[in-house]
Amino acid sequence: MSVTYPRGFLASGMTAGFKPSGRPDLGLLVGDAGTTVAGVFTTNAFAAAPVGLCRTRLGSARAVLVNSGQANAATGSRGDRDALTSTAAAAEALGMAPEEMLQCSTGVIGEPLHMEPLIRAIPSVVGALSSEGGENFAHAIMTTDTVDKRAKADAGPYRVGGCAKGVGMISPNLATMLVFLTTDAPVARADLQRLAAEQLARRFNSLTVDACTSTNDTVLLFASGAAGGPAVESGTPEWAQLEAGVAEVGESLVRQLAADAEGVTHVLLIEVSGAASEEDARLVAKAVADSPLVKTAAFGGDPNVGRVLQAVGSSGAVVDPSRVGVSIGDVAVVEGGVIPPNYFDQGDATHEAATAAMKEPEIRIGITLGAGVAASRALGCDLSYEYVKINGEYTT
Amino acid sequence: MSVTYPRGFLASGMTAGFKPSGRPDLGLLVGDAGTTVAGVFTTNAFAAAPVGLCRTRLGSARAVLVNSGQANAATGSRGDRDALTSTAAAAEALGMAPEEMLQCSTGVIGEPLHMEPLIRAIPSVVGALSSEGGENFAHAIMTTDTVDKRAKADAGPYRVGGCAKGVGMISPNLATMLVFLTTDAPVARADLQRLAAEQLARRFNSLTVDACTSTNDTVLLFASGAAGGPAVESGTPEWAQLEAGVAEVGESLVRQLAADAEGVTHVLLIEVSGAASEEDARLVAKAVADSPLVKTAAFGGDPNVGRVLQAVGSSGAVVDPSRVGVSIGDVAVVEGGVIPPNYFDQGDATHEAATAAMKEPEIRIGITLGAGVAASRALGCDLSYEYVKINGEYTT
Repeated sequence: MSVTYPRGFLASGMTAGFKPSGRPDLGLLVGDAGTTVAGVFTTNAFAAAPVGLCRTRLGSARAVLVNSGQANAATGSRGDRDALTSTAAAAEALGMAPEEMLQCSTGVIGEPLHMEPLIRAIPSVVGALSSEGGENFAHAIMTTDTVDKRAKADAGPYRVGGCAKGVGMISPNLATMLVFLTTDAPVARADLQRLAAEQLARRFNSLTVDACTSTNDTVLLFASGAAGGPAVESGTPEWAQLEAGVAEVGESLVRQLAADAEGVTHVLLIEVSGAASEEDARLVAKAVADSPLVKTAAFGGDPNVGRVLQAVGSSGAVVDPSRVGVSIGDVAVVEGGVIPPNYFDQGDATHEAATAAMKEPEIRIGITLGAGVAASRALGCDLSYEYVKINGEYTT
Repeated sequence: MSVTYPRGFLASGMTAGFKPSGRPDLGLLVGDAGTTVAGVFTTNAFAAAPVGLCRTRLGSARAVLVNSGQANAATGSRGDRDALTSTAAAAEALGMAPEEMLQCSTGVIGEPLHMEPLIRAIPSVVGALSSEGGENFAHAIMTTDTVDKRAKADAGPYRVGGCAKGVGMISPNLATMLVFLTTDAPVARADLQRLAAEQLARRFNSLTVDACTSTNDTVLLFASGAAGGPAVESGTPEWAQLEAGVAEVGESLVRQLAADAEGVTHVLLIEVSGAASEEDARLVAKAVADSPLVKTAAFGGDPNVGRVLQAVGSSGAVVDPSRVGVSIGDVAVVEGGVIPPNYFDQGDATHEAATAAMKEPEIRIGITLGAGVAASRALGCDLSYEYVKINGEYTT
């Protein structure tokens, strides 16, 4: 499983001492020479120093150093220097050029990297590299995650693996969604970036825990080519196989992230169809998934469909209320924009069926807009006491 | 106090039986013949039937019938018919044309108006009209508000009064922000609408409890002219006095709404300056005030300024991180986009001062963007266990 399932990758994870808890907090992933990388990054203007470094090195990189504990965001020029220094040290220990090393950081925004323990740990994290180190790597990138997130897929002659972390877009002490996928398929850089854009960007953008875009969000896709053979190109059967494998691993990881979101008791799957444009569908799905009123209704198991309509109507998408339909689970509740007049009566059968659907571990809310053929989805979670506790009380 | 402080208005409030609690739930406000009205309404596509009715009648109206208990939103053509029928009944009892009567409704979205008790109560609510009825009216429009919101001001030769309700943009059973202001100044309709747009629209738009725009939000400003004299026109000393009075009453009501928001333990005042445009300033203020992470930090009393930067950076406004400053209360924390490296050290003086500022009943967060001269603000509240309880558990 994880990032070392495909051939051509070594990984490791260890405790360097960035976290007061003493849990693993430093990971390293290295692809064979010739490995290509594609990346998708946060759009936050306060993007962290390592995100800036990744952006400039995608064309040359084949390895990534990951620390959890400090985000190295809002750290100014010192943060840039620290990112350069720490990746240079890791690259040197591996006999690589500095440009071959990326960095991801997750943790407290504003706190500088703890450079002394980081530099001291480099020989150990390099020495621990192993073709079976994917699991240790997956553990080292965790922050307040309660479980690690790993996935793998077979894609014809190729393998795809991955791991991820993140429980809030910013979690209490520790920030960010980080996702790492690997394949042993040989893929040229531009094609790999296209694969990441088509199969990973939208998939991970559809996840919303608290509507907050972290300063450090990063998705990296590495291709080692260790499976051999010619480079995989779009339009071939091999491309379709690889695409399916990347999609499978990506979907598994995004589901695992949603299921471990901060304070989650129910996952929300918002599926929007019949939109005039994909952007409209996305706006509606995100507005519903992010609505505190929908999220608290999900927590309480209340099929309060008026809150869904409220979110649809203020999403910014073009909406004709008289064409809107809403279902909860398999129960059609709203048709033609109207909530049935008897819905709130004691014992109403639709209300009771919708209530049952709201108690499922995954609550599916379907929304049809009747305006076109475009569709989108959002994956979210409910808003619980535990979310408030995690984010409001951790200082005490 | 309230809407009958200015001369030329009668109001009443009573229990018609829309609410299971038996609390007052029907109000009526009537201006003398010649009264003009201005209005600002929700932008939600699922605007309720009474909002549509108000929009068409602003030019002719001088009275408003208000019910709490049912929102008459997402009720289709039946909702439109019910709004027409109930306002016609109230107008007839007063000897008015139907076009002189507006309606506001607040309560459960999707539940039809309870027409039988409403029609039955019309003679009583008309019979109870009084020049001292403003307090009863303010009570009748409340839903889950814990206190009524009333204000008054003297504006030179004129008086201004008002009342409001609303604790969430949609609250658990009962929805919406409703605001009513009155003045006895004589003001032509077009000038009154301009006054509402300039002094009330932005002021009430700056309030955000849960980022959810209700289907029924309405602000109405009535001018009876009962103070006598010529119509007040822009550019005169009387206009400036009236403007100041309307602003004072509006500001008092918006502050009262924030202080009674669902589950509130701290009010958030986000003040943004130095923006390239007012729209940018508004985007940033709203992003910070709506961030669940900022809101839970406010609940926990944690000066987690990284969360503020996260919200600023993903607000959609043009932001150059290196020019951003953030203060909490009077404590400058972020300068040039950088959080001080020692901020997280035990006993750091800045952190301790910022912590104290986070414990104030009203938490002021100032943000400078260094991009221009535009400013805006948002008024919000923290996210507490009680908010989750009110919105997640009321069905049990």
